Amino acid sequence: MTTVAFVGLGAMGLPMAEHLIKRQHQVRGFDMKPEAIVAHAANGGVAASSARDAATGADALVLMVVNGAQARSVLFDAGALDALNPGAVVMLMATCSSVDAKAIGTAIHQSGRKFVDAPVSGGVVGAKAGLLTIMAAGPDADLVAAEPFLSAFGDKVFRIGDQWGQGSTVKTINQLLCGVHIAAAAEAFALAEKAGVDTGLILKILGNSAAASWMLNNRGPRMLDAEPDVTSAVDIFVKDLSLVLDAGRAEKVALPLSAAAHQMFLATSGAGHGAADDSQVIRAYRSLNGTA
Amino acid sequence: MTTVAFVGLGAMGLPMAEHLIKRQHQVRGFDMKPEAIVAHAANGGVAASSARDAATGADALVLMVVNGAQARSVLFDAGALDALNPGAVVMLMATCSSVDAKAIGTAIHQSGRKFVDAPVSGGVVGAKAGLLTIMAAGPDADLVAAEPFLSAFGDKVFRIGDQWGQGSTVKTINQLLCGVHIAAAAEAFALAEKAGVDTGLILKILGNSAAASWMLNNRGPRMLDAEPDVTSAVDIFVKDLSLVLDAGRAEKVALPLSAAAHQMFLATSGAGHGAADDSQVIRAYRSLNGTA
Repeated sequence: MTTVAFVGLGAMGLPMAEHLIKRQHQVRGFDMKPEAIVAHAANGGVAASSARDAATGADALVLMVVNGAQARSVLFDAGALDALNPGAVVMLMATCSSVDAKAIGTAIHQSGRKFVDAPVSGGVVGAKAGLLTIMAAGPDADLVAAEPFLSAFGDKVFRIGDQWGQGSTVKTINQLLCGVHIAAAAEAFALAEKAGVDTGLILKILGNSAAASWMLNNRGPRMLDAEPDVTSAVDIFVKDLSLVLDAGRAEKVALPLSAAAHQMFLATSGAGHGAADDSQVIRAYRSLNGTA
Repeated sequence: MTTVAFVGLGAMGLPMAEHLIKRQHQVRGFDMKPEAIVAHAANGGVAASSARDAATGADALVLMVVNGAQARSVLFDAGALDALNPGAVVMLMATCSSVDAKAIGTAIHQSGRKFVDAPVSGGVVGAKAGLLTIMAAGPDADLVAAEPFLSAFGDKVFRIGDQWGQGSTVKTINQLLCGVHIAAAAEAFALAEKAGVDTGLILKILGNSAAASWMLNNRGPRMLDAEPDVTSAVDIFVKDLSLVLDAGRAEKVALPLSAAAHQMFLATSGAGHGAADDSQVIRAYRSLNGTA
């Protein structure tokens, strides 16, 4: 039985931690929200009183926090890194910038521990099913140490490269396409609405054509619903397209479509809809075009 | 045996005309390129000496020309409309603006003939297989008259509405999504290239994720090829995204992603690559970002 610390027991983290429990690991869980720790304990995990407490005596640490700043806070400010066993492996699975992933990896190596930059895609559905896609980067020895844990989360563990940050770059590019495709679907529907064409029929025709995207078919039906359930919020893309544009700045790459898409998510959030389902970026188009 | 005139025997038109021949129609074909007429005759069609000659005595006219201007030229300048039998049905299947489709329909009704605005999607592959998606709009009686011919071209004939231009609007929205998705894929690869991540691996991972689009999977491999075969040229999207933006102007709808994508196709064409495969819009990104 290996002891694993798990910090960040949100909609994705909680079911991911449960997959480790099912593999007979002792999983010491912590989250800023006490109710998340209670849910983790109900799944058979160990309730930790702090990130440092979770990490104490652990051979592995999974970080499924919101961003790079939270990862740094857990590791360096809260003292989780120093509390880990010597030689432990840290897996950063949140969506972070590649710059953050690289800097965090360097600091962790200096402490003698191992580090893998390993963001995921697949959402809550993939996290629950243990079918996440994992984009892992780091030195070979670190990847070997992480693989038994990563394979509990997903059936597709891709080795992107041996440089920290490369996994986060792939995740960033994933978010670039997802964000642009959602905004493009909204733009298409906005034109259809103003032109007086049946948007449900548009979805039926285009969802099976060369115009299709995974996002058109997934978000499209919710886009045509005035108050859909929230699967992922507008503000997630305000954040993730910010990461995309930050990557463009770091690499000096012009990303005109991503920049335009980001403005539409920002405008949606600015109008007070940041907590709405991300399909509701169409509200910014409707405001712009006088059909709100 | 019905006599059908077919004008525009290009990569799509030639196999479409052949499907009518297989249904035992007499198909009188014309194209500005003599070799296209020869190919049509070899398929069992009748070689016409002009658009007017093709239309003379025909009960139906299919227009598979390049744009609305060519359709007007065939119908009004070359005299094809007046040469058609009274009560004949005209099917405009080229990608045109909805404004053009509406104006052409009005003029054709004034002559006593029927008219359907019926653009297609599915490309050369769909045209050859008789599996095009057809977006048909017009008055019911006109649609009924056109259906026996349209069904020869595709298994999915959608009735969009009873107003001419509505079919062209749906096709325009189809092209909006196709154009933006191709440019988005190029933008994603451009970032990956500069960040030093394996673009082939990116395609493998993202082509099966929420980031996927039909275009990412279809154009992606060709985008990573320096000199791919030309399936559809950059200049087609220079034209089709122009139609998208014209529709936005006509309807007073802001289309920021489409506008940005159009600039990238324009820049690619301006750099001398207009005849290259449309996947090569990535060349504009490489020029912008210093990786050309």
